[in-house]
Amino acid sequence: MAVQTVASSTDSVNLGPAAALSCRECGHRVPLGPVFACEECFGPLEIAYDFSGYDTEELRKRIEAGPANIWRYAPLLPVPADVADKPNLNPGWTKLVQADNLARELGVTGGLYVKDDSGNPTHSFKDRVVAQALEAARVFGFTTLSCSSTGNLAGAVGAAAARAGFRTCVFIPHDLEQGKIVMAAIYGGDLVGIEGNYDDVNRFCSELIGDPAGEGWGFVNVNLRPYYAEGSKTLAYEIAEQLGWRLPDQIVVPIASGSQLTKIDKGLQELIKLGLVEDKPYKIFGAQAEGCSPVSVAFKAGNDVVRPQKPNTIAKSLAIGNPADGPYVLDIARRTGGAVEDVTDEEIVDAIKLLARTEGIFAETAGGVTVGVTRKLIENGVLDPAKTTVVLNTGDGLKTLDAVAGTGLTATIRPNLDSFREAGLA
Amino acid sequence: MAVQTVASSTDSVNLGPAAALSCRECGHRVPLGPVFACEECFGPLEIAYDFSGYDTEELRKRIEAGPANIWRYAPLLPVPADVADKPNLNPGWTKLVQADNLARELGVTGGLYVKDDSGNPTHSFKDRVVAQALEAARVFGFTTLSCSSTGNLAGAVGAAAARAGFRTCVFIPHDLEQGKIVMAAIYGGDLVGIEGNYDDVNRFCSELIGDPAGEGWGFVNVNLRPYYAEGSKTLAYEIAEQLGWRLPDQIVVPIASGSQLTKIDKGLQELIKLGLVEDKPYKIFGAQAEGCSPVSVAFKAGNDVVRPQKPNTIAKSLAIGNPADGPYVLDIARRTGGAVEDVTDEEIVDAIKLLARTEGIFAETAGGVTVGVTRKLIENGVLDPAKTTVVLNTGDGLKTLDAVAGTGLTATIRPNLDSFREAGLA
Repeated sequence: MAVQTVASSTDSVNLGPAAALSCRECGHRVPLGPVFACEECFGPLEIAYDFSGYDTEELRKRIEAGPANIWRYAPLLPVPADVADKPNLNPGWTKLVQADNLARELGVTGGLYVKDDSGNPTHSFKDRVVAQALEAARVFGFTTLSCSSTGNLAGAVGAAAARAGFRTCVFIPHDLEQGKIVMAAIYGGDLVGIEGNYDDVNRFCSELIGDPAGEGWGFVNVNLRPYYAEGSKTLAYEIAEQLGWRLPDQIVVPIASGSQLTKIDKGLQELIKLGLVEDKPYKIFGAQAEGCSPVSVAFKAGNDVVRPQKPNTIAKSLAIGNPADGPYVLDIARRTGGAVEDVTDEEIVDAIKLLARTEGIFAETAGGVTVGVTRKLIENGVLDPAKTTVVLNTGDGLKTLDAVAGTGLTATIRPNLDSFREAGLA
Repeated sequence: MAVQTVASSTDSVNLGPAAALSCRECGHRVPLGPVFACEECFGPLEIAYDFSGYDTEELRKRIEAGPANIWRYAPLLPVPADVADKPNLNPGWTKLVQADNLARELGVTGGLYVKDDSGNPTHSFKDRVVAQALEAARVFGFTTLSCSSTGNLAGAVGAAAARAGFRTCVFIPHDLEQGKIVMAAIYGGDLVGIEGNYDDVNRFCSELIGDPAGEGWGFVNVNLRPYYAEGSKTLAYEIAEQLGWRLPDQIVVPIASGSQLTKIDKGLQELIKLGLVEDKPYKIFGAQAEGCSPVSVAFKAGNDVVRPQKPNTIAKSLAIGNPADGPYVLDIARRTGGAVEDVTDEEIVDAIKLLARTEGIFAETAGGVTVGVTRKLIENGVLDPAKTTVVLNTGDGLKTLDAVAGTGLTATIRPNLDSFREAGLA
């Protein structure tokens, strides 16, 4: 991991309550800047905040009076106070769907909710994280936004950059499906295919950051990663506020790098510390596909170390074989009394159909993973059906149509009533 | 057109302010019921309301305190007052995007906004209309929801019915693209392929309504059409409220059957009558694809009659060659001082890319039609760039990927800096 020097003077950095970067491993603090690894121990840097001076009820009122997007939580994010006035996609404040039909099917009696992030502008939770990276890029004076991606992120970066007036140069494996290339290319920036797999793309991006050619470039998931990652906290804030400023008892989160799960925990902890919700126990459950289940395997084996896997699953947006935040996910699942579980590709498809059939929500494969894992955890007696449970759907089924391509017509008939009756549909 | 008898006693019909059905042609009134054609003259029936007793400022407050979906306007829709408590997809309250970048490209100085209905639950405006039909179906005691569709509507009906607990039986041409079949089938109801084209599907549905086999079936766009169509009024309400209870000067609306445009006009007129906005002139512009432009052709020729066309355009969701509301669209365009214009398939693709590149909105082909027509109307001096203008995007680009399939990689490189430099991207 390359440690980049801070490009601009940090005296002028205005990212709201963000006070510094702090190493998750050794606690070493550095000023806010486009850096992502600790200069002391190479651990990951994350945002440290100064929330002092916040009055709980004033803060709650300010949030409730805010816009119907993530910027209602600007006082808790690494963004300038006037962020809502700057051109961006205004993601978030997606629906928390009370899933009574699904609850009946799964035997949940304590209240079941689906946090449906397919309602975001580019139809995945990535809009939340990209929006944070964008503000950091503005503050640090970057003029080009970049990332390595297998699809969803490329679209989210392309769309956000278009609205905000940034140049983009996004890197993807050259042999992605045509549909994903279109979704990423439509926003008109440079889209570069790399002859190699996603690991090759990542390695190349790290090389580019250290090179003069990459100067002035903000890689949302590399040198802007500490800012980017905080966007997932907004999922926690919204869930709690939409439940009436109440913590859920149980929450089921998909695991790719594991970052989202750790930031949801961070967000819930902040709400408790700020007095916005009652301090009560909650359990966080991680969900993986069997074909890419390094964290689930480690959890079940009682290991602290996550052994990398070579992914082979239809849940491609979760297919990170060596998840950077895997050990932190294990910590959180164990500390909160949760668990990490995985489901097969067949169970993922079944769960996508179950969610669509019961709630009218067409989820990406990642949503099939969380719903499938929820069902499995209930069957195994690990998740308590009498408790309030929130399941995340982080993307849209329109992006992973191939996974359910077998779904089709009930019948084919000629356009007359006799043919209709013969088909037994009356 | 078959005239169906009213299935249930209308004494018990509670659809809020909806008072009766009224013939658009002869004014003949009939009680609320699942009928769609006048028994006197076979003209189309539409909802007549009783808005008496509304106090303007009370109504405004009630709306503003309502939920962030179409049900904030329940007092103005044919739905029971407690509609928001019933399980449904809660569509609407989509973003009105201030499109400053697009405005610069098009030379608009008076304020340009995109009403982006891709933010609806199934990513098209169809969720608005289906939600109304669903409430009517509940009230009339239907247990099966049905429709004829070429894709978008089938998905909207499937999703809404799943959430609300209706059985569905949806009819589509049997040879639709596999992706559209998946989008419609995923919600688990019956999806029946008809050996024939969309006209054959429509004719079959009309036959089924008159047959005992179709008893208890609500066809959202046939026998529930008067209720269904009112959903488009919510676009007008939202635009005005999101502009700060102000009418836009100009609004560009796509034309398929023409129903949406007529209901937007109806909605704006209601806001004026209710005193919720200032009574001032506005112009409504209709947008078609050249390959299916019967209304545009009639407008330009100065005709009152719309001559049917055989559609041939990539804008398939607008490809209705014999639009039922065509004459009403002509009336409204002429009365308000608007116009109807069309663009070629090439201009549609260019406009999709323009909107994506400037505002990060990936529109369906129908959105390409409205943006393309807006550009053309400005170039021709018909649309005034100094006035506040709203352009509708009624669907999502993910649903019409084929239309922009040529969009692709800027470059393909090997994963090293030399290859990157050779490509001239630095």
